[in-house]
Amino acid sequence: MKILVSKYAGFCFGVERAINMVNESASKKEKLYTIGPLIHNPQVVKRLEKKGVSVIQKKDIDNLDKGANVVIRSHGITKDLYKKLKNKELNIIDATCPFVKTAQKKAEYLMNQDYDVYIYGEKQHPEVKSILSYSDYKGKIIEDYTYNADDIEKDKKCGIVTQTTRNKKRFAQLCENFIIKSKELRIYNTICDATFKRQKDAKKIAKKVDYMIIVGGKNSANTTKLYNITKNIIPAIHVETVKELNENVLKKYNKIGVTAGASTPEFLIDEVIEKLKLI
Amino acid sequence: MKILVSKYAGFCFGVERAINMVNESASKKEKLYTIGPLIHNPQVVKRLEKKGVSVIQKKDIDNLDKGANVVIRSHGITKDLYKKLKNKELNIIDATCPFVKTAQKKAEYLMNQDYDVYIYGEKQHPEVKSILSYSDYKGKIIEDYTYNADDIEKDKKCGIVTQTTRNKKRFAQLCENFIIKSKELRIYNTICDATFKRQKDAKKIAKKVDYMIIVGGKNSANTTKLYNITKNIIPAIHVETVKELNENVLKKYNKIGVTAGASTPEFLIDEVIEKLKLI
Repeated sequence: MKILVSKYAGFCFGVERAINMVNESASKKEKLYTIGPLIHNPQVVKRLEKKGVSVIQKKDIDNLDKGANVVIRSHGITKDLYKKLKNKELNIIDATCPFVKTAQKKAEYLMNQDYDVYIYGEKQHPEVKSILSYSDYKGKIIEDYTYNADDIEKDKKCGIVTQTTRNKKRFAQLCENFIIKSKELRIYNTICDATFKRQKDAKKIAKKVDYMIIVGGKNSANTTKLYNITKNIIPAIHVETVKELNENVLKKYNKIGVTAGASTPEFLIDEVIEKLKLI
Repeated sequence: MKILVSKYAGFCFGVERAINMVNESASKKEKLYTIGPLIHNPQVVKRLEKKGVSVIQKKDIDNLDKGANVVIRSHGITKDLYKKLKNKELNIIDATCPFVKTAQKKAEYLMNQDYDVYIYGEKQHPEVKSILSYSDYKGKIIEDYTYNADDIEKDKKCGIVTQTTRNKKRFAQLCENFIIKSKELRIYNTICDATFKRQKDAKKIAKKVDYMIIVGGKNSANTTKLYNITKNIIPAIHVETVKELNENVLKKYNKIGVTAGASTPEFLIDEVIEKLKLI
């Protein structure tokens, strides 16, 4: 059997950085609290729990003692929540992805410079909520790239930032309407290439193989997206661990492709590859 | 015969302003010098000459005496030439169109703020040359909206301004490639609506009539453009004055449309309309 593994499978820069930061603190035998699961991968979260990293909810923050170690996960938190952590004098381990941080900063800057702020992204995504909070909630979230921008005031300065995982081409198309209608426009392309490259490579591999395995959390949006993209091309399966793979199914194929989401650790990908090698 | 006259025919705001400024000074019996013809309309230039407004060339500036009245025409001059006029202590009547002035200022601002400056426009157009000079000649002129922006440095800040008479839709398309490739982009849509509205209305009228008359200087780019647009729809003629119209040709048509370029004075349009009314 031939196995094709995407070179973009697994941890993105921001997730790897967050995991490393948490591992470093945990290795000092410190008790850590992450607000929500650090990444959308149950296996990793379980391993971290054994190292003393507990998942808490926002409401639990009030119960933390001064000086407790609290981790901000890679997609960031709102400005108000950050202030609350500071006020409670917690020890903040800020693992916000630097790309997300840039988007937050740009939204804040644009708001301070009297721009009408627009954020291209999903309203319900924590990253977008965090970016919005940095515009003091004055920003407008745009989910659809076909937004016609008819409601913008012609002589107002407009500033646009984007969720880091969006499609560049669509972002550019969205901006087109703003360019036509706005006299002054400031565009921060805060898109991170990793998502795009991972998806593009998944598509490329799917066209070369008979079967595709996508490894990653079922609760991971970007992993699910990889599955949806590839299953439109060839038969595909989305698994969290190697245990979900059926040997009899795998045997039917000559060429199998493997990729994984941004929150999938290497060991889970390796386990899948090892199994395939034995068939 | 039915006559349809475009409500956008004739002087744009910038040209009207320039003519008024010159007329005001000329009415004081002052001798005036314009660097190049004030507008691209021979009939107007002739009338102005009678009022003491002489057309000179750049090289003639050296021969002017201190305090002489020199007029900057609506599409502006280069920063260096402006400096020269100042140094020679000439009395400058600055009739640069305020829209062009905005484009100049924005190019200068972007250059001062360390942006890579791009100017969307025709290399040979005096307006574009003037805008370029305000970027201290560091700007890059882009003539074609399909420019792929492959040569831009990913982490450089890019700023774009545009010649005031360009098409908005194409300008937006050009910017698309920059949005995809640049992390920070500042777009000044310095396009003046007048050209677009005049062209759009000319098209609309051409579709309703049997014949189209375009009035304006043969040396006027925007008038010639109106002619090219309409002649693709119906038979059309480009005339500078009513004298060029042939009664026998006009008689063949039931509905005639009239429009005129941004540099065409009202009296030339009126003469055409009066003639049509008599047929």
